[in-house]
Amino acid sequence: MSADDAAIEAFVARILEGSVRAGARAMRLVDDREPIAREILDRLYRHTGRARVIGITGNPGSGKSTLTDRLVSHYRTQGKRVGVVAVDPSSPFTGGAILGDRIRMNQHATDPGVFIRSLATRGNLGGLSRSTNDVVAILDAMGFDIVLLETVGVGQDEVEVVKLAHTSVVVLVPGLGDDIQAIKAGILEIADVFAVNKADRDGADRTIRDIRNLQMLADTAATGWTPPIIRTVATTDDGVADLVEAIAAHDTHGRAAGSDAAERLRRREAHILESLIRDRLVERMVEALGDAATRRALLDRLVARETTPYAEAQRVLDELLRG
Amino acid sequence: MSADDAAIEAFVARILEGSVRAGARAMRLVDDREPIAREILDRLYRHTGRARVIGITGNPGSGKSTLTDRLVSHYRTQGKRVGVVAVDPSSPFTGGAILGDRIRMNQHATDPGVFIRSLATRGNLGGLSRSTNDVVAILDAMGFDIVLLETVGVGQDEVEVVKLAHTSVVVLVPGLGDDIQAIKAGILEIADVFAVNKADRDGADRTIRDIRNLQMLADTAATGWTPPIIRTVATTDDGVADLVEAIAAHDTHGRAAGSDAAERLRRREAHILESLIRDRLVERMVEALGDAATRRALLDRLVARETTPYAEAQRVLDELLRG
Repeated sequence: MSADDAAIEAFVARILEGSVRAGARAMRLVDDREPIAREILDRLYRHTGRARVIGITGNPGSGKSTLTDRLVSHYRTQGKRVGVVAVDPSSPFTGGAILGDRIRMNQHATDPGVFIRSLATRGNLGGLSRSTNDVVAILDAMGFDIVLLETVGVGQDEVEVVKLAHTSVVVLVPGLGDDIQAIKAGILEIADVFAVNKADRDGADRTIRDIRNLQMLADTAATGWTPPIIRTVATTDDGVADLVEAIAAHDTHGRAAGSDAAERLRRREAHILESLIRDRLVERMVEALGDAATRRALLDRLVARETTPYAEAQRVLDELLRG
Repeated sequence: MSADDAAIEAFVARILEGSVRAGARAMRLVDDREPIAREILDRLYRHTGRARVIGITGNPGSGKSTLTDRLVSHYRTQGKRVGVVAVDPSSPFTGGAILGDRIRMNQHATDPGVFIRSLATRGNLGGLSRSTNDVVAILDAMGFDIVLLETVGVGQDEVEVVKLAHTSVVVLVPGLGDDIQAIKAGILEIADVFAVNKADRDGADRTIRDIRNLQMLADTAATGWTPPIIRTVATTDDGVADLVEAIAAHDTHGRAAGSDAAERLRRREAHILESLIRDRLVERMVEALGDAATRRALLDRLVARETTPYAEAQRVLDELLRG
């Protein structure tokens, strides 16, 4: 064993003991895309798979952040250690909502049983899924019992991130307007549990009825699980205990359901593996497009229609890929 | 020139003449990922760059579909031919909203100066951007003066798609709730024009004030353009003429602003080129992961922690990539 190896082993051991300092350091290495992060994660990975990952997805304004906060308190009361990963792809350029997340969660800031991490997207080259996966793996290895994975919206990105969850909670609010059917068509496919938050508002009954109607049209026979619809008012904690129970029920169902549960675990691994590969492929593409001047010259030729993106894409692919 | 070449040339010529049948056929070839589609697009590309692409982005419930409809009518009154591409990543699995789009646009169905195309995402492997780019290029080559590119939400996917637009309209509605700041932080970066739709509702003034406040904090000096905020009521056509004017003003500004406009055109080409490369890389990744049985065996080994995604990703990358 080399000196390097021994140092990495010692660092990994500290993470596995649950050291917050070591865990946070590992997450920074992931952020900075340090090559050593891969090696650390590779060693940690065999110790993961124990944490239950719960996705909390909802549009801005649905109150999912407050709800996440409440869930943390409930799980802490049960004596569970809780990690929170707040993913915010709604702010692709500025990461503007991140500060708000940090302030919001301050009530848990001094609780050593809670670890909060915010992730924004990094430009347009993807990598969000990979970073999320790595951070969740580190929290898992650190021994957190529950990881709450909070994401905005129901776009493709969110669907990606949600693939990491053992249970997905979709948060809706009454009165989203006439296009609500359009959202739900996608939402139905990712929700294991619905939370109708702000349920003290007008229109909550209507929202619940809408979801029920959609569920009646959907094929749930394959899994034997019909996602329950829980009314919550996160600001007053109303219904949050019911939500915790519904999540636990889904977890129990998942562990009992045999092939369905196994398929879900495979899907998680596929997601993690493909994120890693895709991320590196995109990095290589960026390298192949050359430095700023080379890249700019190429783009100018494309703007002038002196060449086509189809021809140039083929050239780059031939350069990158084996036979 | 081979017989094949001559046939492709003839087909391309029909598209360039604006044949709806040839254009629709080319779009189906793109959908089906027929290799010949690349060749057709490569030949069409030198004839593109004339259409003005206008992005219309808004959350479900913002009424952007009705607004798009109204814009079509206004541009038709000006004698312009209009293509509409409705991209719907909100329904990643079922494509459930697509039928609604088709029905919605029926009023234009018999107008030969309007061409409508809906695109849903295709599973989780990306490709949406590439398909969108290809369809817009075909409409451009067919001689449509305006292409309206309608997208849901403001996630990463939508930001991707919007990169294709010369002018981006962000549609907001009053009363989206307390998290609205979180959306706007991202929205501010992509909007060239704001439409506050359903402006007859309570809270419109507040929404406009919120946008203005955010704009005051943002740095618009670089482009010399402060996105105007237009009140619209799409259902009654109120304000839609103002919106058309604001879009035209942004277009004029863009053409006059020298380096900024050039940079925007380069960004479009970069987006198109990178989508093509990324799409093919992901295809190759899927091929490298093998058939269903091979893939499943690998995933089972990952679930059992007999190997790690980090090691397996490296193996696949070594197989795919040149040195």
